[in-house]
Amino acid sequence: MENSKQTISHNKEETETRTQKIVVLRWGHRPQRDARLTTHVALVARALGASGFLLSDIVDEKIRETVEKVTRNWGGKFFFEMGAPWKSAVRDWKAKGGIVVHLTVYGENIQTSSVLGRIKNLRKDVLVLVGSQKVPKDFFSNDVSDFNVSIGSQPHSECAALAIFLDRFFAGKELVKEFKKAKIKVVPQERGKKTIVEC
Amino acid sequence: MENSKQTISHNKEETETRTQKIVVLRWGHRPQRDARLTTHVALVARALGASGFLLSDIVDEKIRETVEKVTRNWGGKFFFEMGAPWKSAVRDWKAKGGIVVHLTVYGENIQTSSVLGRIKNLRKDVLVLVGSQKVPKDFFSNDVSDFNVSIGSQPHSECAALAIFLDRFFAGKELVKEFKKAKIKVVPQERGKKTIVEC
Repeated sequence: MENSKQTISHNKEETETRTQKIVVLRWGHRPQRDARLTTHVALVARALGASGFLLSDIVDEKIRETVEKVTRNWGGKFFFEMGAPWKSAVRDWKAKGGIVVHLTVYGENIQTSSVLGRIKNLRKDVLVLVGSQKVPKDFFSNDVSDFNVSIGSQPHSECAALAIFLDRFFAGKELVKEFKKAKIKVVPQERGKKTIVEC
Repeated sequence: MENSKQTISHNKEETETRTQKIVVLRWGHRPQRDARLTTHVALVARALGASGFLLSDIVDEKIRETVEKVTRNWGGKFFFEMGAPWKSAVRDWKAKGGIVVHLTVYGENIQTSSVLGRIKNLRKDVLVLVGSQKVPKDFFSNDVSDFNVSIGSQPHSECAALAIFLDRFFAGKELVKEFKKAKIKVVPQERGKKTIVEC
């Protein structure tokens, strides 16, 4: 599931099982208030199988540093980009043949509707839009989102919504993925902490 | 999966399907730094099927207010308690016959191990310990955790880990649960926002 290049049309190297690629776009980040949450959203994207992360409309070097440090230490390929306006990121993604999935409490319920199946059946790369409280109305329009997906109809967390979307999209396979060139690896244990560290 | 007894007395009204009950204990909250993250963890607990939330070792009225306001508006039963030391919360839980599951990157992988099945087979109510970066070493000991569970072996987010644990534990049923006495309900849509508000 490693991807040799960073941006969008670039999946020359895919897994044997040829999964659709996912990139996460985080909209509405406010540097002070959202620092930890956006970091978590980016780390969830990386840990749970996405190929990269776009922080739209803003630059936040601290988040970039944190995420890139995790990738350096824990391995795998994962790109982090920031500052591009969300509209152009969406336009570019679509121009390259990708689809856009907007995670929102108002969308089709991932559990009770067929929406996940319809997304997967298209076999196209997916840009997942993850907003914050008030997203632009445009996010719901045909021009932007191909699908509006809810992880239940209760307010909770974009971080959690992304996690469940990715876990279901990759059907758990993301949790066994090997992260290549890792300096730190965890060895799962019933008790205690075991890591292998190579420096 | 049926459990006829409620060890914690707070939910008289349960779903018809009578599953093992889950309560989430959040350890290590720092009021300034973790405000939004802990709020998200609590909202994830509520939205994804837990019965209640314990903020251990600290009091943070702002978080309580936010969570209780969500419950008032969006319905369902969900208790929020704070301030008790984690040790006594764990002791009390165990004294009532419950088990403790510690979510940690170092634990048994939920995807590759049989840990979730073993937890469910016990048919006991579950206290899920959700820490932050450095949890007390005791969390890994027999005295505290019956199971140490990892949601993959990569660093990501306690909020995401809890979400995936709950989604898998309840096998998606939590996403269709009806929240009784809700003032606000979302009606899932392919596009746009539709809510029913009763005040």
